[in-house]
Amino acid sequence: MTVEMTEDELNARHAEKMRKKKVVRDKILASKNVEKGLLIVHTGKGKGKSTAAFGMAFRSLGHGLPVAVVQFVKGAMDTGERMALERFGDLVSINRLGEGFTWETQDRQRDIAAAQHAWETAKELIRSGEYHLVVLDELNIVLRYDYLPLAEVIAFLTDEKPADVHVVITGRNAPDALIEIADLVTEMELIKHPFRSGVKAQKGIEF
Amino acid sequence: MTVEMTEDELNARHAEKMRKKKVVRDKILASKNVEKGLLIVHTGKGKGKSTAAFGMAFRSLGHGLPVAVVQFVKGAMDTGERMALERFGDLVSINRLGEGFTWETQDRQRDIAAAQHAWETAKELIRSGEYHLVVLDELNIVLRYDYLPLAEVIAFLTDEKPADVHVVITGRNAPDALIEIADLVTEMELIKHPFRSGVKAQKGIEF
Repeated sequence: MTVEMTEDELNARHAEKMRKKKVVRDKILASKNVEKGLLIVHTGKGKGKSTAAFGMAFRSLGHGLPVAVVQFVKGAMDTGERMALERFGDLVSINRLGEGFTWETQDRQRDIAAAQHAWETAKELIRSGEYHLVVLDELNIVLRYDYLPLAEVIAFLTDEKPADVHVVITGRNAPDALIEIADLVTEMELIKHPFRSGVKAQKGIEF
Repeated sequence: MTVEMTEDELNARHAEKMRKKKVVRDKILASKNVEKGLLIVHTGKGKGKSTAAFGMAFRSLGHGLPVAVVQFVKGAMDTGERMALERFGDLVSINRLGEGFTWETQDRQRDIAAAQHAWETAKELIRSGEYHLVVLDELNIVLRYDYLPLAEVIAFLTDEKPADVHVVITGRNAPDALIEIADLVTEMELIKHPFRSGVKAQKGIEF
């Protein structure tokens, strides 16, 4: 049996449904009262992992809150993002410390040394407590290649990260141990990609 | 049978593997030569849909390329993002035209009128060709509520979008017809959320 509703009935039903929804939402929101620096992980094969992390950086900067970025894979951050971040001057600390993509360097020892140097810098920036948000861009990649001891990274993030510092870690294949200790984990899943139809990387979109 | 490799052997094997990987990648990249304005969709229940869209906006702005944003749900964009975008002055057109969340307004007719006004503005901005990237933030939400005719939106994006304009559409529950015509679709999947452990929305992270 189909019941046809008039516009007025539709509107009235909508108003009632939304009134109830608001009551539920307000109740849920009121129960959330913990403030803490979050450990956030963006992983998965889809796009947007680093882009969303940098989006969070811009959000903090918009509030006038300082941000640090450590790049574990040089060349992974595009020039557009870097130039936009640099607009915020002293509020931002950009550290491009990793080596290039592994298939560019083809040199394991150099990659390991660069990853370790980047990690030392990341620890200093996080420990300093001077940054509201620290982005560890593509850290998952160097963890995947065992260029850093995973246990040490997990121990540092668990025991030494100041309580009010937010840390965002990006890259495919986030290790299970990292997901385990994270507060917020999002997996970017690829549904459709223009590369499949021969479209090349374009300025302001891919880099 | 386990074969123990020396560090030197590991390094040599790595170099050879990466050399081959680079050959394959360079070949793939060389085959991508189409340039076109993409229709990009960020959907799914996870976080980062709008944040990654705004991240792309900042990337374009970093390159000095103009960006327009149309908000289909007022209050969905946080103040941090807005303040950061405003730093780029005339390069950005921010249009906060939608009504508040449906459970805030509780007024279907007002929401529909606001959605239609926002859509008219979106069409003008896209048609003008003045913007490298146009973000239609939370358009999927108003499509979900049938506040705009889906067929008209699809027809416009297919037939009237200038070939060199990139459009990013965000929001949960992207309609199938939109996914069908999109070039790049990413689903943000929620793996873990701090709300579950009572953590409240925090400045620079959630808003």
